[in-house]
Amino acid sequence: MTITITAFERSPDGGKGLARDTRVRWALEEAGLPYAVRLVSFQAMKELAHRALHPFGQIPTYEEGDLVLFETGAIVLHIAQRHAGLLPADADARARATTWMFAAVNTVEPPILELANAVLLERDTTWSTERLPRVQDRVRDRMRPLSEFLGDADWLDGAFSAGDLMMVSVLLRLRASGILDEFANLAAYVARGEARSAYQRAFAAQRAVNTAEIKEG
Amino acid sequence: MTITITAFERSPDGGKGLARDTRVRWALEEAGLPYAVRLVSFQAMKELAHRALHPFGQIPTYEEGDLVLFETGAIVLHIAQRHAGLLPADADARARATTWMFAAVNTVEPPILELANAVLLERDTTWSTERLPRVQDRVRDRMRPLSEFLGDADWLDGAFSAGDLMMVSVLLRLRASGILDEFANLAAYVARGEARSAYQRAFAAQRAVNTAEIKEG
Repeated sequence: MTITITAFERSPDGGKGLARDTRVRWALEEAGLPYAVRLVSFQAMKELAHRALHPFGQIPTYEEGDLVLFETGAIVLHIAQRHAGLLPADADARARATTWMFAAVNTVEPPILELANAVLLERDTTWSTERLPRVQDRVRDRMRPLSEFLGDADWLDGAFSAGDLMMVSVLLRLRASGILDEFANLAAYVARGEARSAYQRAFAAQRAVNTAEIKEG
Repeated sequence: MTITITAFERSPDGGKGLARDTRVRWALEEAGLPYAVRLVSFQAMKELAHRALHPFGQIPTYEEGDLVLFETGAIVLHIAQRHAGLLPADADARARATTWMFAAVNTVEPPILELANAVLLERDTTWSTERLPRVQDRVRDRMRPLSEFLGDADWLDGAFSAGDLMMVSVLLRLRASGILDEFANLAAYVARGEARSAYQRAFAAQRAVNTAEIKEG
């Protein structure tokens, strides 16, 4: 059955791979699944036809026959549960991998999103410079225990899993701030994720869209 | 096999049910599973013995034989996948319920956490009053499409599911701000969740801990 995902017609990051379709492309590449991509403009994302697929008017969405999903965590888990390559066989290990998926999006990502809001949406204010170190420290409060937990392991729970895919994807958003590089083992962990051939194919595919856009635009 | 969860020895909310163990208690009650609770102090949460269960030094954790999980989303999903009452039988409907679990923790909760940080951690600043409306508007930006999607339905995707359990639990954290009540159908949705007998048992159980604490303390 054909899998179709949506992605930005023109990603705000210009193809750096930080748009959330990259997470889904990566999972599909790890699982060896072909997929089609439908590009949507910012205008189209807010219209009813797209909001019928994604109530919050965002990307990516995932269509497979009659099934429509949104939320990268749910899409990646759906793929991981049905195809080899993203979850271990053992039931307990699968539950632990799922724990790391939720830790990525609900423990590690919220302060990173708050930092992005501080930088992107509040830099016009008189207080943004004074506030920024507080927000950065809240990110570090999550990075420190994550770094201690990972130690010198390659992945969070033995073999690479969907938990690592989500965690690396979340941490990638922190690189531009410089905070990722304060934690050498986490920076190396992210680099290990990026070095996977499935990630590289996913990255190249989203980059091609945005490079084409720039040429045409 | 005995299920043991951890909870605050003394919850910061004094037993209003906003600590995250309530989400897990609720799921266990919906599934009809007995469980034991081990209470941990703020000091103990940061110590190695607890951090071996929860790398980020938080509650709740979930122990079942050799399996140790953290992250409420992962724990609720684990329970839901193995017991009746929290996920539909149809595979596509299960995937959609999981989508709502992730939407709760990764789309709706982050701005609510940012609002909580603004109120709890930044009210000592000169700029907190000026900043607050921006943060509140970011919460409303997520509440509006959620309210439109729910419409006059009882639950997000047909029958009550783990997706509703997580969404109601996240929205409960917004009630004190007054923003939940700006969206009448979402306020009614949360009230429907609270009216479930499983929720009421979960709420009473966490309340009993904190009331006892207050008496003893």
